[in-house]
Amino acid sequence: MADDGSAHQVSRRGFLVGAAGLAGVAVGGAVGGVVGGTVGGAQGAPEDAGGRAVVPFHGERQAGVATPPPAFLTLVALDLAGGVDRDALVRLLRIWTDDAARLTRGEPGLADSEPELAAVPASLTVTVGFGPEVFRVARRADRVPRWLGPLPPFGVDALRPEWSDGDLVLQLCADDQVTLAHAARVLVRQASTFAQVRWVQQGFRHAPGAVPSGTTMRNLFGQVDGTRNLVPGRDDDLIWVGDGPLAGGTGMVVRRIAMNLDTWEALDRPAREQTVGRRLADGAPLTGNAEHDEPDLAATGPDGLTVIPGFAHIRRARTDDPRQRFLRRGYNYDDGAGRDAGLVFVTFQADVAEQFVPVQRRLDELDLLNTWTTPIGSAVFAVPGGVAPGEYLGQRLLV
Amino acid sequence: MADDGSAHQVSRRGFLVGAAGLAGVAVGGAVGGVVGGTVGGAQGAPEDAGGRAVVPFHGERQAGVATPPPAFLTLVALDLAGGVDRDALVRLLRIWTDDAARLTRGEPGLADSEPELAAVPASLTVTVGFGPEVFRVARRADRVPRWLGPLPPFGVDALRPEWSDGDLVLQLCADDQVTLAHAARVLVRQASTFAQVRWVQQGFRHAPGAVPSGTTMRNLFGQVDGTRNLVPGRDDDLIWVGDGPLAGGTGMVVRRIAMNLDTWEALDRPAREQTVGRRLADGAPLTGNAEHDEPDLAATGPDGLTVIPGFAHIRRARTDDPRQRFLRRGYNYDDGAGRDAGLVFVTFQADVAEQFVPVQRRLDELDLLNTWTTPIGSAVFAVPGGVAPGEYLGQRLLV
Ligand code: HEM
Ligand code: HEM
Repeated sequence: MADDGSAHQVSRRGFLVGAAGLAGVAVGGAVGGVVGGTVGGAQGAPEDAGGRAVVPFHGERQAGVATPPPAFLTLVALDLAGGVDRDALVRLLRIWTDDAARLTRGEPGLADSEPELAAVPASLTVTVGFGPEVFRVARRADRVPRWLGPLPPFGVDALRPEWSDGDLVLQLCADDQVTLAHAARVLVRQASTFAQVRWVQQGFRHAPGAVPSGTTMRNLFGQVDGTRNLVPGRDDDLIWVGDGPLAGGTGMVVRRIAMNLDTWEALDRPAREQTVGRRLADGAPLTGNAEHDEPDLAATGPDGLTVIPGFAHIRRARTDDPRQRFLRRGYNYDDGAGRDAGLVFVTFQADVAEQFVPVQRRLDELDLLNTWTTPIGSAVFAVPGGVAPGEYLGQRLLV
Repeated sequence: MADDGSAHQVSRRGFLVGAAGLAGVAVGGAVGGVVGGTVGGAQGAPEDAGGRAVVPFHGERQAGVATPPPAFLTLVALDLAGGVDRDALVRLLRIWTDDAARLTRGEPGLADSEPELAAVPASLTVTVGFGPEVFRVARRADRVPRWLGPLPPFGVDALRPEWSDGDLVLQLCADDQVTLAHAARVLVRQASTFAQVRWVQQGFRHAPGAVPSGTTMRNLFGQVDGTRNLVPGRDDDLIWVGDGPLAGGTGMVVRRIAMNLDTWEALDRPAREQTVGRRLADGAPLTGNAEHDEPDLAATGPDGLTVIPGFAHIRRARTDDPRQRFLRRGYNYDDGAGRDAGLVFVTFQADVAEQFVPVQRRLDELDLLNTWTTPIGSAVFAVPGGVAPGEYLGQRLLV
């Protein structure tokens, strides 16, 4: 039970309320700067409270990792332009830092052409990550984390270059798609002389107010997805880099995983539940009664076989090594009414090689779920630590 | 002032509250069927009230036209398969009718493989429209409205077949993207032996709870978009077909209009405001002070020129003919962080040829906005009248 996270579930609303006095999360005014009150639960919350929620940009760590996932994700990977040197890179990072600080407060970017579209912060977070090229351009190639670069190839992979790699990543999350589209536009436009867009991936979870806070998301196979996960606060040593130039930062893995709804739906429900080892109705393990019950991997049925099969995703995804864990923070995507659907699977971990790769390797060797899922994109980024006012993103990593 | 619609603004929350006793809009329980209370404004509304809101499927008219636009849109156009005859068509329509009634109540479809994804109705509406082929297959070619078929070609058009036409359309709207993805999946899957997907278009407005209800949407040019519009209830004769086989139905135009943010943002704000004839800050006409002030098209400035220029979008989009009006119910799209953005421009009108085409022709002749906008998709559908329990979609039109 120590591991199941149920006592640590961070709800969106709980986070906003609790953090107002603790971590500095504030529900502030939009463009006018008027503080309109705090979000005090459903009772008495102003109708547009969700739109006015602000997640602080500045801090010891970048937001967008340990902060509760809002409803929508836009990931933009960019490649640095040919002539960009260290000075130009720092200029770009300064511009992004300034604009991210403004946009996340619900204020227009510095050269914002549509300032009115910035008025609804909606828990916007902007998280920046670096590929190895950023270190080289900054003449800090010695600081490239040893795990930074393409993942080793896996048998399940069917990777497409148009969904893979990149020199820089912007991870934008918000509870409003207009806000998200505008923030992405502003940051991409500001980068246009420094970097070209390589790929854009968008994802969604339930809308704010659609399900009670603290509800675990469901993916498009209908599964409760995210039950057993690292918990920020409790598992910080696994999520964040402790020392060295990347201190306060983390490693980010992005896998675009296509899910074949047609063949998945051809299975009956028991087969689907055995594939994962959990029930579809409530996410409870096949050996338990409630979502957060600890699975009993040793339990056997009347046939003498383990109740949670050997090929089950949750059995294969866990190991005895307590270091082989990571924070999953993915989103659903669906670009074609079910015909082009899956997960933008995003993980954060202090060390990608040590924590993520062995698990992905185990799943590559055996995981019945692979029958219906195919990784079609892959990228790894180093997410530098947080930014104090006056600093720029990545400053401590690149100076 | 009679025309400006300000007294008739239908807010989402206002609609839900007001309609609970009038038009039968209910906030019902999800899968369990437990009624969890009504949405009585922010005070005391349960946290997931927006997720539990139900827009009735049955009625004199199809939902999704006059009902307030939720945050998200998925449009699916399909082409009938070769062998489909009248009986097969009716089977498909019966299946869709059943499933749409269920899904909009927050209940799984009849052959739903992911019933848990149906649990959050989130104001889901399912609206079905027909291209001319449906009438032919139903052996009712004599009933094809004379305006049904591709629009006449316009000079501004750069139409692509992959965004145009179709034998059938499903318009799905909801305040939750998981709900929307699932509903689209269920209905498309049910249709798979009868019809193939031709195109899918998705769009968004502000999220529920992000802006005060009744706020007019903004498009990705930052403009307040939708101020002067037909108002359901007041303008029903312009929206709905009054008699004949399509009585209670309407004509639907879908235009996918790309918006070039790069060149638009190269303009200064006065030039952008003159292009439309309204201010960016609040949507007020250049001759007025507030969004819903009536524009004074005759007013001249010190230079003797009209304040609202001759080329301005709002001058060109209105005519003296009171019939040349329609309900605009479009959504933003952005498939690439601003590089592939625009409007899924959707209109409803009783007669497409009489109401829509002359306005589109005027705008084609002169509208400075055309410099930055390009229609890249176009489709017209006949939306049959509503469905009583026991009937199937389009029954009165096709029998
Ligand atoms: C489309 C692909 C995938 C789907 C649909 C999927 C789905 C799920 C589901 C339903 C669960 C059980 C609920 C939970 O604890 O969250 C789960 C658990 C988990 N998954 Fe996945 N997953 C996918 C890919 C991956 C990949 C690629 C990895 C890692 C490389 C991964 C790692 C894990 C881990 C570590 C757990 C928790 C296992 C435990 O400790 O019980 N999953 N996944
Ligand atoms: C991307 C393309 C378009 C954009 C960005 C756009 C934007 C706008 C804006 C900002 C307004 C003023 C606010 C309002 O009353 O809603 C407006 C009004 C209007 N637009 Fe458009 N529009 C576009 C395309 C079209 C098209 C294709 C048509 C019709 C064929 C159209 C018809 C109208 C009408 C009828 C009005 C109201 C005019 C009035 O009565 O004052 N628009 N549009």
